[in-house]
Amino acid sequence: MSSTISPSLEALAIGIDIGGTGTKFGIVDKVGNVLFSSEISTKKHKTIETFIDELYDSLSVLIQKAGGIGRMKGIGVGAPNGNFYTGTIEYAPNLPWRGIIPLAKLIQDKFQLPVVLTNDANAAAIGEMMYGAAKGMKDFIMITLGTGVGSGIVANGQLIYGHDGFAGELGHTITIPDGRYHEGTGKKGSLESYASATGVRLTALEVMEHTDKPSSLRDLPKDELNSKHVYDAAMQGDEVAKEIFEYTGKILGMALANFVMFSSPEAIILFGGLTKAGDLILKPTREHMEANLIQVFHNKVKILVSHLKESDAAILGASALAWE
Amino acid sequence: MSSTISPSLEALAIGIDIGGTGTKFGIVDKVGNVLFSSEISTKKHKTIETFIDELYDSLSVLIQKAGGIGRMKGIGVGAPNGNFYTGTIEYAPNLPWRGIIPLAKLIQDKFQLPVVLTNDANAAAIGEMMYGAAKGMKDFIMITLGTGVGSGIVANGQLIYGHDGFAGELGHTITIPDGRYHEGTGKKGSLESYASATGVRLTALEVMEHTDKPSSLRDLPKDELNSKHVYDAAMQGDEVAKEIFEYTGKILGMALANFVMFSSPEAIILFGGLTKAGDLILKPTREHMEANLIQVFHNKVKILVSHLKESDAAILGASALAWE
Repeated sequence: MSSTISPSLEALAIGIDIGGTGTKFGIVDKVGNVLFSSEISTKKHKTIETFIDELYDSLSVLIQKAGGIGRMKGIGVGAPNGNFYTGTIEYAPNLPWRGIIPLAKLIQDKFQLPVVLTNDANAAAIGEMMYGAAKGMKDFIMITLGTGVGSGIVANGQLIYGHDGFAGELGHTITIPDGRYHEGTGKKGSLESYASATGVRLTALEVMEHTDKPSSLRDLPKDELNSKHVYDAAMQGDEVAKEIFEYTGKILGMALANFVMFSSPEAIILFGGLTKAGDLILKPTREHMEANLIQVFHNKVKILVSHLKESDAAILGASALAWE
Repeated sequence: MSSTISPSLEALAIGIDIGGTGTKFGIVDKVGNVLFSSEISTKKHKTIETFIDELYDSLSVLIQKAGGIGRMKGIGVGAPNGNFYTGTIEYAPNLPWRGIIPLAKLIQDKFQLPVVLTNDANAAAIGEMMYGAAKGMKDFIMITLGTGVGSGIVANGQLIYGHDGFAGELGHTITIPDGRYHEGTGKKGSLESYASATGVRLTALEVMEHTDKPSSLRDLPKDELNSKHVYDAAMQGDEVAKEIFEYTGKILGMALANFVMFSSPEAIILFGGLTKAGDLILKPTREHMEANLIQVFHNKVKILVSHLKESDAAILGASALAWE
């Protein structure tokens, strides 16, 4: 018997966060402690069946450590394009499985536990609302700035699912009409094509082509250049790298202004890799958000960076679904 | 005693719709019949005090006809920039009164009845949900295309007010970055600067300047040209006028796509003068909305035109507030 687990019948919940590269999962108590957690690869599983099998094997070990399946209240899952209403993952461009995947049913059949699915950014929003930067807020927007741009919207204290469960695809809103092409969607000028790790890389390539300012980024092979390099260079004072973040923040700020004029949130919570750039990106984001807001919104909306441990936030949010 | 009014104590509600030009008001029964209605000028009142006085005098006549103040349950008011939480109108660019106006309190003190205020488009959305095209819907967006562009957003069956009561300023979202200047807000490229009666007029002037195609619109003095002229010309087959609506629909469609990717509504309800242009504007709007949506939203979202009588819809919506 583990010393951190009481022998009583206190219920626990399982949170699973499925990402394009890896899938994280953990066992969480009611106050938000991640008691046990682990991770498997998503990418290597060409079929959903082998993925579910490995997930079952790995998670079973944790369930045993935590006192057995009888203590598990249920399973919450966050996944790209996960649909709360249908329990399916539908046409997720960043996952290895095509078409419509009945994920909730597959997991439920395997584990014999109730399963609730939502998209990964919605799960993160619930995590922030219950345990993080949005604690106590009834109106906020969560934006995840990773390989792509995800979002979860809370209004009147409720997650906005929309008519069909697909609300909150803010990364795909068009910020620059006829702007940068997005390979995954075939659309032009979406927020995601600028304000993601992929977007920062593309901006870097464009900026370097259009100026002849010196930059340490020019020493890297173009196909290896990524947003981490841009961050490192900016921290070293590289002017071109700083300009890249300035531009990214400008586009992000414009988009955030539009989101504010939609749902008038108390705060926008940013999460994910790009937020590590701190004021390099936050300062232009705030400036350009304010510049595009009409008067009634000026200086009202906080832009906050999530302070949850990145590895925990999505597991926490997903697990929170299981309590409902 | 009027024959349409029963002598019993059935309660009635008062709905007031304050617009930039005129203010409409009426007395409404519980099933949505507008029993008596009238209108006064908004524009001519330089101060809020004289406006309230005239409103009181005109409305008192209707109240007497409807059986006296004792039958009135309360007053619902829709007004530009009307704030549900505070009962104030704040910095409304299209009204003659500057700054923050404590409208709900002023009306309450004058009439000695409970008053609920919200913005005009929110009131219209409630009217549509209770009595109109959105009956039975839990997720929809109302867009009013008049002198300006207003909006009301319903999600999970609730009106989205946001943190401060100012949610749903979709007319001010930036659709074309660095686009057309908006005199009221000082911002560039907002939806309202294109998809309003004012916007259609400006588009007409621009299109005529940039082409030398013949058009009956060229016969009108530039300072008199308005959206009604463009409509009339388009109905006569004028190619330039049709192009003006095509362009307006393109911008509106792009904006609607972004709104859909925010809250994934079942339908978008359009209301107001510009909808009279019918397919001249609706066809390009639908096309460009679909063209900018990612796959999961394709062919899912209805664009509907309100079928409530224009003069009634806002009064109905405002009155509905008084029942709560």
